[in-house]
Amino acid sequence: MYSQIGIIRVVTTSDDHVLYAHEKIIKSFLPSLNMVTQSIPDQLHGIYDSASEEVAIPKIIKLALEMELAGMDGIIISCCTDPALDLVREKVKIPVVGAGQAACLMAKAISTKVGVTSLTDQIPENLKNQLGNCLVAYQKVQGISNTLDLLNKSGKESVIQSANFLISQGAQCILLGCTGMATIGIANFIEQDLNIPVVDPIVASGSLINYLVNRNKWQVRA
Amino acid sequence: MYSQIGIIRVVTTSDDHVLYAHEKIIKSFLPSLNMVTQSIPDQLHGIYDSASEEVAIPKIIKLALEMELAGMDGIIISCCTDPALDLVREKVKIPVVGAGQAACLMAKAISTKVGVTSLTDQIPENLKNQLGNCLVAYQKVQGISNTLDLLNKSGKESVIQSANFLISQGAQCILLGCTGMATIGIANFIEQDLNIPVVDPIVASGSLINYLVNRNKWQVRA
Repeated sequence: MYSQIGIIRVVTTSDDHVLYAHEKIIKSFLPSLNMVTQSIPDQLHGIYDSASEEVAIPKIIKLALEMELAGMDGIIISCCTDPALDLVREKVKIPVVGAGQAACLMAKAISTKVGVTSLTDQIPENLKNQLGNCLVAYQKVQGISNTLDLLNKSGKESVIQSANFLISQGAQCILLGCTGMATIGIANFIEQDLNIPVVDPIVASGSLINYLVNRNKWQVRA
Repeated sequence: MYSQIGIIRVVTTSDDHVLYAHEKIIKSFLPSLNMVTQSIPDQLHGIYDSASEEVAIPKIIKLALEMELAGMDGIIISCCTDPALDLVREKVKIPVVGAGQAACLMAKAISTKVGVTSLTDQIPENLKNQLGNCLVAYQKVQGISNTLDLLNKSGKESVIQSANFLISQGAQCILLGCTGMATIGIANFIEQDLNIPVVDPIVASGSLINYLVNRNKWQVRA
């Protein structure tokens, strides 16, 4: 009944609160998923531009292959740029969720007018492609350059400011385009404060991997 | 803890086995969802072409509004052409899942090469649009003209034949593009027999509405 899920963190950290933040969120609402979290090495600031993404890709593939070999039933790549997602899917036989794709798929089930906030000047290409004509606006969170900055008090304020801007641009759903925003637990805060549905990429990822690993068991054999 | 989900069936039937088939499937893997199934009236053969869809749309909207008024937390429109989906989303405040969109979103999380089988000569527009460049092939199930034909023994054989054709065209995931194919419980059969992941639109819908109605509770407030 229990499924084993590997979570690949793309930020290297020795802070257990940060490292296990995503598995704790998912475990809280999907207790039948057992999770094993591992960081890729030597990536102290995570993925925040194309260079840091490029260097991360072989590390993610290596870790995914190790997780499959260790008996995991599914893998979450816990980063909204979906680094190495297609490559990993080609190489492993188990289901693989990318946090960015998961968030986009769920957001499209909520609204055709999605606003995205993330850490880069331009919207990550994968989010733009997945959302297609459901994307109405994008804004980089002001004053934040990597996932660790989000942990500061002003990080939360800056995400709320971005959400407000996206609403002013016609967004009817906010997609948090950085899994660091899940770590700081801001989705519900924005949702209630600004009265708009907010997609937390980790909640979306957990829900999606739960479908993917249990799909076979759930389907009725007539 | 329990959520109330309204299921809108677009085929009018007095056969309880058919009427409650979809809620039974979802209940089997999501016991915390309470479901209320209702058919739209005077639609004995369901939705199988544009004329039968057009006449169904106002009936679906009316039923959805009644379901919201009755206190449902979410609604599933149990038809793969997603009839009235956008219109219903505009009119009600609760989350609404269309079986077609749900199946497409989940299929995209599995593969970029999706084959679709359904009952119409051409692939339903909504499935084509949702899948975008992840759609590799479509085939109408041979010898089937509406959802009730699927209940015959030859119906199952015909769906399997279509799946085989789609695989020959490069599909690496099969999307069952008619909720009548969920009713006959064929997804797992194809999956195991042909060794390919198969998306059952009702399993996808249940999983998606579960995310949508529980999202708020699941999100962590830091």
